[in-house]
Amino acid sequence: MAKIKVESSVALYPMPVLIVGTHVEGKPNFMTVGWATRMNPKPPILGIAVVKTHQTAQGIIENEAFSINIPNAELLKEADCCGIFSGREMDKAAFFDVFYGSELQAAPMIAQCPICHACKLVDTIELDPVHFFLGEIVETYTEKKYLTFGKPDLTKTNPFVLTLPDGNYRSVGDVIGKAWEIGAKHKP
Amino acid sequence: MAKIKVESSVALYPMPVLIVGTHVEGKPNFMTVGWATRMNPKPPILGIAVVKTHQTAQGIIENEAFSINIPNAELLKEADCCGIFSGREMDKAAFFDVFYGSELQAAPMIAQCPICHACKLVDTIELDPVHFFLGEIVETYTEKKYLTFGKPDLTKTNPFVLTLPDGNYRSVGDVIGKAWEIGAKHKP
Repeated sequence: MAKIKVESSVALYPMPVLIVGTHVEGKPNFMTVGWATRMNPKPPILGIAVVKTHQTAQGIIENEAFSINIPNAELLKEADCCGIFSGREMDKAAFFDVFYGSELQAAPMIAQCPICHACKLVDTIELDPVHFFLGEIVETYTEKKYLTFGKPDLTKTNPFVLTLPDGNYRSVGDVIGKAWEIGAKHKP
Repeated sequence: MAKIKVESSVALYPMPVLIVGTHVEGKPNFMTVGWATRMNPKPPILGIAVVKTHQTAQGIIENEAFSINIPNAELLKEADCCGIFSGREMDKAAFFDVFYGSELQAAPMIAQCPICHACKLVDTIELDPVHFFLGEIVETYTEKKYLTFGKPDLTKTNPFVLTLPDGNYRSVGDVIGKAWEIGAKHKP
Protein backbone atom coordinates (compact mmCIF):
# COMPACT_ATOMS: atom_id res chain seq x y z
CA MET A 1 0.00 0.00 0.00
CA ALA A 2 1.34 3.41 -0.94
CA LYS A 3 -1.25 5.83 0.39
CA ILE A 4 -0.64 9.50 -0.21
CA LYS A 5 -2.40 12.54 1.18
CA VAL A 6 -4.25 14.81 -1.23
CA GLU A 7 -6.14 18.05 -0.88
CA SER A 8 -9.23 17.48 1.26
CA SER A 9 -11.87 19.37 -0.64
CA VAL A 10 -12.10 16.74 -3.35
CA ALA A 11 -15.57 15.40 -3.99
CA LEU A 12 -15.15 12.06 -5.58
CA TYR A 13 -18.45 10.34 -5.29
CA PRO A 14 -21.03 10.71 -8.07
CA MET A 15 -23.44 13.50 -7.14
CA PRO A 16 -27.11 13.73 -8.01
CA VAL A 17 -28.21 16.61 -10.23
CA LEU A 18 -31.33 18.21 -8.76
CA ILE A 19 -33.13 21.46 -9.56
CA VAL A 20 -34.36 23.37 -6.51
CA GLY A 21 -37.33 25.72 -6.91
CA THR A 22 -38.58 28.47 -4.64
CA HIS A 23 -40.11 31.92 -4.88
CA VAL A 24 -37.89 34.99 -5.09
CA GLU A 25 -39.73 38.29 -4.84
CA GLY A 26 -42.97 36.42 -5.38
CA LYS A 27 -41.88 34.69 -8.59
CA PRO A 28 -40.63 31.15 -9.25
CA ASN A 29 -36.87 30.74 -9.50
CA PHE A 30 -34.74 27.62 -9.98
CA MET A 31 -31.20 26.57 -9.12
CA THR A 32 -29.31 23.35 -9.75
CA VAL A 33 -27.62 21.61 -6.82
CA GLY A 34 -25.43 18.54 -6.45
CA TRP A 35 -24.95 18.66 -2.70
CA ALA A 36 -28.09 16.93 -1.50
CA THR A 37 -29.14 13.82 0.37
CA ARG A 38 -31.95 11.93 2.01
CA MET A 39 -31.74 12.50 5.76
CA ASN A 40 -34.68 10.75 7.37
CA PRO A 41 -37.12 8.07 6.23
CA LYS A 42 -40.32 9.01 8.08
CA PRO A 43 -41.06 11.86 8.01
CA PRO A 44 -39.15 11.91 4.71
CA ILE A 45 -36.55 14.69 4.90
CA LEU A 46 -34.17 15.82 2.19
CA GLY A 47 -31.20 18.12 2.83
CA ILE A 48 -29.65 20.53 0.32
CA ALA A 49 -26.66 22.85 0.51
CA VAL A 50 -27.05 26.35 -0.96
CA VAL A 51 -24.45 29.13 -0.76
CA LYS A 52 -26.00 31.91 1.32
CA THR A 53 -25.62 34.67 -1.26
CA HIS A 54 -27.79 32.87 -3.83
CA GLN A 55 -31.31 34.13 -4.37
CA THR A 56 -32.52 30.58 -3.74
CA ALA A 57 -31.19 30.67 -0.16
CA GLN A 58 -33.01 33.93 0.50
CA GLY A 59 -36.19 32.59 -1.10
CA ILE A 60 -36.21 29.40 0.96
CA ILE A 61 -35.75 31.34 4.20
CA GLU A 62 -38.52 33.80 3.33
CA ASN A 63 -41.03 31.23 2.11
CA GLU A 64 -40.09 28.25 4.25
CA ALA A 65 -40.81 26.12 1.21
CA PHE A 66 -38.97 24.73 -1.81
CA SER A 67 -39.20 22.03 -4.42
CA ILE A 68 -36.68 19.41 -5.47
CA ASN A 69 -37.05 18.37 -9.08
CA ILE A 70 -35.13 15.44 -10.56
CA PRO A 71 -34.38 16.19 -14.22
CA ASN A 72 -33.85 13.60 -16.91
CA ALA A 73 -31.03 13.70 -19.44
CA GLU A 74 -33.22 15.58 -21.94
CA LEU A 75 -33.06 18.55 -19.55
CA LEU A 76 -29.26 18.64 -19.45
CA LYS A 77 -28.85 22.14 -20.91
CA GLU A 78 -31.59 23.61 -18.76
CA ALA A 79 -30.17 22.00 -15.62
CA ASP A 80 -26.68 23.25 -16.40
CA CYS A 81 -27.99 26.73 -17.14
CA CYS A 82 -29.81 26.80 -13.77
CA GLY A 83 -26.45 26.01 -12.14
CA ILE A 84 -24.48 28.68 -13.98
CA PHE A 85 -26.71 31.74 -14.05
CA SER A 86 -28.38 33.68 -11.26
CA GLY A 87 -32.03 34.62 -11.27
CA ARG A 88 -30.69 38.20 -11.23
CA GLU A 89 -29.41 37.65 -14.79
CA MET A 90 -32.04 35.42 -16.29
CA ASP A 91 -35.68 34.32 -15.84
CA LYS A 92 -34.95 30.63 -15.33
CA ALA A 93 -38.63 29.82 -14.80
CA ALA A 94 -39.11 30.60 -18.51
CA PHE A 95 -37.32 27.33 -19.41
CA PHE A 96 -40.05 25.24 -17.86
CA ASP A 97 -43.77 24.69 -17.39
CA VAL A 98 -44.22 25.46 -13.71
CA PHE A 99 -46.88 23.84 -11.57
CA TYR A 100 -47.80 23.76 -7.88
CA GLY A 101 -49.02 21.03 -5.56
CA SER A 102 -52.05 21.33 -3.34
CA GLU A 103 -50.22 22.28 -0.14
CA LEU A 104 -47.32 24.70 -0.58
CA GLN A 105 -47.78 28.04 -2.32
CA ALA A 106 -44.08 28.79 -2.79
CA ALA A 107 -42.71 25.46 -3.99
CA PRO A 108 -42.84 25.81 -7.79
CA MET A 109 -42.31 22.48 -9.55
CA ILE A 110 -41.09 21.68 -13.05
CA ALA A 111 -43.57 19.78 -15.21
CA GLN A 112 -40.77 18.51 -17.49
CA CYS A 113 -39.00 16.78 -14.57
CA PRO A 114 -40.08 13.16 -14.05
CA ILE A 115 -40.01 13.46 -10.25
CA CYS A 116 -40.94 16.56 -8.24
CA HIS A 117 -40.95 16.87 -4.46
CA ALA A 118 -42.63 19.79 -2.66
CA CYS A 119 -40.81 20.40 0.62
CA LYS A 120 -41.60 22.35 3.77
CA LEU A 121 -38.52 23.87 5.42
CA VAL A 122 -38.11 22.23 8.82
CA ASP A 123 -34.61 23.35 9.83
CA THR A 124 -31.59 25.31 8.59
CA ILE A 125 -28.00 24.45 9.51
CA GLU A 126 -25.89 27.55 9.20
CA LEU A 127 -22.40 26.84 7.91
CA ASP A 128 -19.99 29.22 6.18
CA PRO A 129 -20.60 30.00 3.30
CA VAL A 130 -23.49 27.51 3.05
CA HIS A 131 -27.02 27.25 4.38
CA PHE A 132 -27.96 23.60 4.65
CA PHE A 133 -31.74 23.35 4.39
CA LEU A 134 -33.78 20.43 5.73
CA GLY A 135 -37.01 19.96 3.82
CA GLU A 136 -39.79 17.59 4.73
CA ILE A 137 -41.34 16.15 1.59
CA VAL A 138 -45.06 16.89 1.78
CA GLU A 139 -46.00 15.87 -1.75
CA THR A 140 -44.30 13.98 -4.59
CA TYR A 141 -45.48 14.21 -8.18
CA THR A 142 -44.70 12.09 -11.20
CA GLU A 143 -46.54 10.79 -14.28
CA LYS A 144 -47.95 7.37 -15.11
CA LYS A 145 -45.44 6.89 -17.92
CA TYR A 146 -42.61 6.84 -15.36
CA LEU A 147 -44.11 4.02 -13.29
CA THR A 148 -43.55 0.28 -13.42
CA PHE A 149 -45.95 -1.79 -11.31
CA GLY A 150 -47.09 1.44 -9.64
CA LYS A 151 -43.65 2.64 -8.60
CA PRO A 152 -41.38 5.21 -10.21
CA ASP A 153 -38.83 3.42 -12.37
CA LEU A 154 -35.37 4.91 -12.64
CA THR A 155 -34.83 3.42 -16.07
CA LYS A 156 -37.77 5.58 -17.20
CA THR A 157 -37.06 8.72 -15.16
CA ASN A 158 -33.48 8.69 -16.50
CA PRO A 159 -31.66 10.88 -13.94
CA PHE A 160 -28.01 11.77 -14.33
CA VAL A 161 -25.07 12.52 -12.07
CA LEU A 162 -22.26 15.07 -11.81
CA THR A 163 -18.72 13.79 -11.40
CA LEU A 164 -15.73 15.77 -10.13
CA PRO A 165 -13.02 16.88 -10.54
CA ASP A 166 -13.57 16.09 -14.24
CA GLY A 167 -16.73 18.23 -14.27
CA ASN A 168 -18.89 15.98 -16.40
CA TYR A 169 -22.50 14.99 -16.37
CA ARG A 170 -22.85 11.25 -16.75
CA SER A 171 -25.71 8.85 -17.21
CA VAL A 172 -26.40 6.14 -14.67
CA GLY A 173 -24.64 2.99 -15.86
CA ASP A 174 -25.31 -0.72 -15.96
CA VAL A 175 -26.47 -2.86 -13.05
CA ILE A 176 -23.43 -4.48 -11.41
CA GLY A 177 -25.15 -6.17 -8.47
CA LYS A 178 -28.26 -6.48 -6.36
CA ALA A 179 -28.26 -4.44 -3.15
CA TRP A 180 -28.89 -6.25 0.17
CA GLU A 181 -28.35 -9.53 -1.63
CA ILE A 182 -24.93 -9.88 -3.29
CA GLY A 183 -23.16 -9.39 0.04
CA ALA A 184 -25.38 -11.91 1.81
CA LYS A 185 -25.11 -14.59 -0.88
CA HIS A 186 -21.40 -14.18 -1.39
CA LYS A 187 -19.95 -13.24 1.95
CA PRO A 188 -16.46 -11.88 1.41
CA MET B 1 -49.37 17.14 -18.37
CA ALA B 2 -50.90 14.44 -16.26
CA LYS B 3 -49.11 14.70 -12.93
CA ILE B 4 -50.06 12.23 -10.24
CA LYS B 5 -49.17 12.13 -6.57
CA VAL B 6 -47.13 9.20 -5.30
CA GLU B 7 -45.87 8.12 -1.91
CA SER B 8 -43.35 10.69 -0.65
CA SER B 9 -40.63 8.49 0.75
CA VAL B 10 -39.37 7.55 -2.68
CA ALA B 11 -35.70 8.21 -3.28
CA LEU B 12 -35.19 8.46 -6.95
CA TYR B 13 -31.85 10.07 -7.43
CA PRO B 14 -28.74 7.88 -7.76
CA MET B 15 -27.08 7.63 -4.34
CA PRO B 16 -23.39 7.30 -3.64
CA VAL B 17 -22.19 4.12 -1.94
CA LEU B 18 -19.79 5.00 0.88
CA ILE B 19 -18.34 2.94 3.72
CA VAL B 20 -18.20 4.73 7.06
CA GLY B 21 -15.61 3.65 9.61
CA THR B 22 -15.39 4.36 13.32
CA HIS B 23 -14.36 2.61 16.52
CA VAL B 24 -16.88 0.58 18.49
CA GLU B 25 -15.67 -0.62 21.87
CA GLY B 26 -12.15 0.34 20.84
CA LYS B 27 -12.14 -1.68 17.61
CA PRO B 28 -12.65 -0.61 13.99
CA ASN B 29 -16.11 -1.17 12.56
CA PHE B 30 -17.60 -0.31 9.16
CA MET B 31 -21.05 0.44 7.77
CA THR B 32 -22.22 1.27 4.27
CA VAL B 33 -24.33 4.40 3.74
CA GLY B 34 -26.08 5.95 0.75
CA TRP B 35 -27.48 9.01 2.48
CA ALA B 36 -24.53 11.36 2.35
CA THR B 37 -23.54 14.67 0.84
CA ARG B 38 -21.00 17.44 0.68
CA MET B 39 -22.22 20.29 2.87
CA ASN B 40 -19.55 23.00 2.87
CA PRO B 41 -16.54 23.74 0.67
CA LYS B 42 -14.07 25.30 3.13
CA PRO B 43 -13.75 23.90 5.70
CA PRO B 44 -14.78 20.80 3.75
CA ILE B 45 -17.71 19.16 5.53
CA LEU B 46 -19.48 15.93 4.64
CA GLY B 47 -22.82 14.88 6.14
CA ILE B 48 -24.01 11.30 6.65
CA ALA B 49 -27.27 9.85 7.95
CA VAL B 50 -27.04 6.88 10.33
CA VAL B 51 -29.98 5.27 12.13
CA LYS B 52 -29.41 5.84 15.85
CA THR B 53 -29.55 2.20 16.90
CA HIS B 54 -26.55 1.24 14.73
CA GLN B 55 -23.23 0.65 16.44
CA THR B 56 -21.71 3.17 14.01
CA ALA B 57 -23.90 5.97 15.41
CA GLN B 58 -22.81 5.15 18.95
CA GLY B 59 -19.17 4.93 17.88
CA ILE B 60 -19.20 8.30 16.12
CA ILE B 61 -20.74 10.00 19.15
CA GLU B 62 -18.23 8.42 21.53
CA ASN B 63 -15.14 9.04 19.41
CA GLU B 64 -16.14 12.26 17.63
CA ALA B 65 -14.38 10.85 14.59
CA PHE B 66 -15.18 8.71 11.56
CA SER B 67 -13.91 7.90 8.10
CA ILE B 68 -15.68 7.97 4.76
CA ASN B 69 -14.26 5.48 2.29
CA ILE B 70 -15.31 5.43 -1.36
CA PRO B 71 -15.22 1.83 -2.60
CA ASN B 72 -14.67 0.77 -6.20
CA ALA B 73 -16.75 -1.82 -7.99
CA GLU B 74 -14.31 -4.59 -7.01
CA LEU B 75 -15.49 -4.08 -3.41
CA LEU B 76 -19.16 -4.60 -4.24
CA LYS B 77 -19.68 -7.68 -2.06
CA GLU B 78 -17.82 -6.19 0.89
CA ALA B 79 -19.74 -2.91 0.61
CA ASP B 80 -23.06 -4.72 0.45
CA CYS B 81 -22.12 -6.93 3.40
CA CYS B 82 -21.25 -3.83 5.46
CA GLY B 83 -24.75 -2.52 4.70
CA ILE B 84 -26.56 -5.73 5.63
CA PHE B 85 -24.86 -7.02 8.77
CA SER B 86 -24.24 -5.38 12.12
CA GLY B 87 -20.88 -5.34 13.83
CA ARG B 88 -22.71 -7.31 16.55
CA GLU B 89 -22.96 -10.25 14.11
CA MET B 90 -19.72 -10.02 12.18
CA ASP B 91 -16.21 -8.55 12.35
CA LYS B 92 -16.49 -6.34 9.29
CA ALA B 93 -12.99 -4.95 9.75
CA ALA B 94 -11.70 -8.42 8.83
CA PHE B 95 -12.72 -7.79 5.19
CA PHE B 96 -10.18 -5.01 4.81
CA ASP B 97 -6.67 -3.80 5.49
CA VAL B 98 -7.28 -1.00 7.97
CA PHE B 99 -5.02 2.04 8.24
CA TYR B 100 -5.08 5.33 10.12
CA GLY B 101 -4.10 8.86 9.18
CA SER B 102 -1.79 11.03 11.23
CA GLU B 103 -4.48 13.00 13.07
CA LEU B 104 -7.49 10.99 14.19
CA GLN B 105 -7.11 7.89 16.33
CA ALA B 106 -10.64 6.57 15.83
CA ALA B 107 -11.16 7.03 12.09
CA PRO B 108 -10.14 3.65 10.66
CA MET B 109 -9.73 3.76 6.89
CA ILE B 110 -9.89 1.02 4.28
CA ALA B 111 -6.70 0.50 2.28
CA GLN B 112 -8.61 -1.20 -0.56
CA CYS B 113 -10.79 1.91 -1.11
CA PRO B 114 -9.37 4.34 -3.68
CA ILE B 115 -10.43 7.42 -1.68
CA CYS B 116 -10.49 7.68 2.12
CA HIS B 117 -11.48 10.73 4.15
CA ALA B 118 -10.74 11.02 7.88
CA CYS B 119 -13.39 13.26 9.45
CA LYS B 120 -13.71 15.04 12.78
CA LEU B 121 -17.29 15.23 14.07
CA VAL B 122 -18.31 18.90 14.15
CA ASP B 123 -22.07 18.67 14.69
CA THR B 124 -24.93 16.18 15.02
CA ILE B 125 -28.46 16.86 13.82
CA GLU B 126 -30.87 14.73 15.78
CA LEU B 127 -33.78 13.49 13.70
CA ASP B 128 -36.01 10.48 14.30
CA PRO B 129 -34.79 7.72 13.78
CA VAL B 130 -31.61 9.19 12.27
CA HIS B 131 -28.53 10.95 13.57
CA PHE B 132 -27.16 13.17 10.83
CA PHE B 133 -23.45 13.64 11.45
CA LEU B 134 -21.41 16.54 10.10
CA GLY B 135 -17.76 15.63 9.63
CA GLU B 136 -15.00 18.03 8.72
CA ILE B 137 -12.51 16.30 6.43
CA VAL B 138 -9.12 16.63 8.08
CA GLU B 139 -7.18 14.29 5.81
CA THR B 140 -7.81 12.59 2.47
CA TYR B 141 -5.82 9.59 1.30
CA THR B 142 -5.51 7.98 -2.11
CA GLU B 143 -2.79 6.30 -4.20
CA LYS B 144 -0.72 7.52 -7.15
CA LYS B 145 -2.36 5.01 -9.47
CA TYR B 146 -5.70 6.79 -9.03
CA LEU B 147 -4.38 10.20 -10.09
CA THR B 148 -4.35 11.92 -13.46
CA PHE B 149 -2.29 15.12 -13.64
CA GLY B 150 -2.06 15.04 -9.84
CA LYS B 151 -5.80 14.82 -9.19
CA PRO B 152 -7.93 11.81 -8.33
CA ASP B 153 -9.58 10.52 -11.49
CA LEU B 154 -13.04 9.03 -11.21
CA THR B 155 -12.49 6.78 -14.21
CA LYS B 156 -9.69 5.16 -12.18
CA THR B 157 -11.33 5.21 -8.73
CA ASN B 158 -14.42 3.57 -10.26
CA PRO B 159 -17.11 4.36 -7.66
CA PHE B 160 -20.64 3.06 -8.01
CA VAL B 161 -24.13 4.16 -7.05
CA LEU B 162 -27.26 2.69 -5.48
CA THR B 163 -30.56 3.16 -7.26
CA LEU B 164 -34.02 2.79 -5.74
CA PRO B 165 -36.69 1.50 -5.65
CA ASP B 166 -35.12 -1.16 -7.90
CA GLY B 167 -32.39 -1.82 -5.32
CA ASN B 168 -29.47 -2.17 -7.68
CA TYR B 169 -25.87 -1.12 -7.60
CA ARG B 170 -24.90 0.50 -10.88
CA SER B 171 -21.71 1.75 -12.41
CA VAL B 172 -21.29 5.39 -13.36
CA GLY B 173 -22.22 5.72 -17.02
CA ASP B 174 -21.01 7.62 -20.06
CA VAL B 175 -20.32 11.34 -20.23
CA ILE B 176 -23.40 13.11 -21.59
CA GLY B 177 -22.25 16.72 -21.25
CA LYS B 178 -19.74 19.13 -19.76
CA ALA B 179 -20.85 20.82 -16.53
CA TRP B 180 -20.81 24.64 -16.36
CA GLU B 181 -20.41 24.69 -20.14
CA ILE B 182 -23.20 22.95 -22.04
CA GLY B 183 -25.80 25.29 -20.54
CA ALA B 184 -23.76 28.39 -21.32
CA LYS B 185 -22.95 27.42 -24.90
CA HIS B 186 -26.44 26.25 -25.71
CA LYS B 187 -28.81 28.39 -23.73
CA PRO B 188 -32.23 26.75 -23.72
